[in-house]
Amino acid sequence: MLQLYFFPMACSLASRIALTEAGIEARYHLAHIWTKKVVDDGSDFRSVSPKGAVPVLILENGERLTESAAVLQYIADLKPELGLAPRPGDPDRYRLQEWLSFIGAEIHKAFLFPTFWYKDDASLAKPRARIGQTLSVPATHLADREFLVGDRFTVADAHLTWALLLLRPAGVDIAQWPSLSAYLERMQARPAVREAIATEMALRKTVTA
Amino acid sequence: MLQLYFFPMACSLASRIALTEAGIEARYHLAHIWTKKVVDDGSDFRSVSPKGAVPVLILENGERLTESAAVLQYIADLKPELGLAPRPGDPDRYRLQEWLSFIGAEIHKAFLFPTFWYKDDASLAKPRARIGQTLSVPATHLADREFLVGDRFTVADAHLTWALLLLRPAGVDIAQWPSLSAYLERMQARPAVREAIATEMALRKTVTA
Ligand SMILES: N[C@@H](CCC(=O)N[C@@H](CS)C(=O)NCC(=O)O)C(=O)O
Ligand SMILES: N[C@@H](CCC(=O)N[C@@H](CS)C(=O)NCC(=O)O)C(=O)O
Repeated sequence: MLQLYFFPMACSLASRIALTEAGIEARYHLAHIWTKKVVDDGSDFRSVSPKGAVPVLILENGERLTESAAVLQYIADLKPELGLAPRPGDPDRYRLQEWLSFIGAEIHKAFLFPTFWYKDDASLAKPRARIGQTLSVPATHLADREFLVGDRFTVADAHLTWALLLLRPAGVDIAQWPSLSAYLERMQARPAVREAIATEMALRKTVTA
Repeated sequence: MLQLYFFPMACSLASRIALTEAGIEARYHLAHIWTKKVVDDGSDFRSVSPKGAVPVLILENGERLTESAAVLQYIADLKPELGLAPRPGDPDRYRLQEWLSFIGAEIHKAFLFPTFWYKDDASLAKPRARIGQTLSVPATHLADREFLVGDRFTVADAHLTWALLLLRPAGVDIAQWPSLSAYLERMQARPAVREAIATEMALRKTVTA
């Protein structure tokens, strides 16, 4: 069985959404990303992955896969018939990769990440100055589309759903972009998305810094 | 013919290396990433891509593809016989995606990007504090390997070569990680890599901020 190391409401939520949408059972291990302890057994999370970051997916053969863009494509490809990623060879596969990179680099690392780790205004001024332009890219794209890629839910939507959920605690009100708030509402209306979020919101209350 | 919008020695260098390694002819347009002007004709780079960032690859059908991870995989898949990316279905394809994400998110966006755009020590203290741990990941991996993925040059190596070249101007001396400096020397000894870098170093002198 696949195993996912996650931290509640961290970017590993996208991987949980993907697994839930795919109907793939997995064992979930809560890894505390500040203390670097695996909550199950108190072991050192860095011995699971030296990056010390979630998500980490343990494959059936015991190998460890990190990085949301890779983990999400791996999960999607386990059930190609569900269309959670366009099949390799379909030009839309590159669109999926384009969105995964944009969300992971421009929304997560260039904006959300500094807001999680840096609490001083000086470190945050520049990321804050850029986020409006960054978010206008998916806002424009979604003005007349239901999903990021093609006409069905893909793992890119799982990734963006997570990122949008984290913008509010990071101080950005997405109501400024009606297409983004409508999109987030649509995504949250999906049973698998709702279930994944509810599970992690409940667990989030059990962890302390 | 493919067209690549690039800025000399910016992350689009990886896409030029990939095209050169693949022996694919392309038209190159210098896009000034500060002034947002296309140098060819003075037009607005944001009308090529609203992101205003390089690389932008114009495909044969006129569509625009952005994000290094997507552009690099697209280029590699044009010549599957060269092995610039493991073929879809090969488990190593996910390793390629893992490295592309790590380089684009953790080295580029979490470290190099702030050093390009933010000149004050306050904004840079936190990224600087993390870069050592980040670089230990490829340093450890490359201690006993010639390339990032499998046993041949892939577009992940093109991406990492660019990132390592930029670390010195960003104030990080990679001699601290002998496996990384040996790797960079190996990569720079490749004719296609050397040619791509020489072209962009010469052009870099022609652009001003
Ligand atoms: N590029 C990685 C980012 C992973 C990441 O930053 N995870 C965060 C949680 S959202 C984490 O575990 N951080 C702990 C740390 O960086 O020390 C990905 O896309 O998966
Ligand atoms: N996530 C993008 C990053 C692209 C990027 O940041 N490009 C830089 C040059 S290295 C740029 O054009 N920056 C201009 C800007 O962000 O305004 C990728 O991986 O391609």
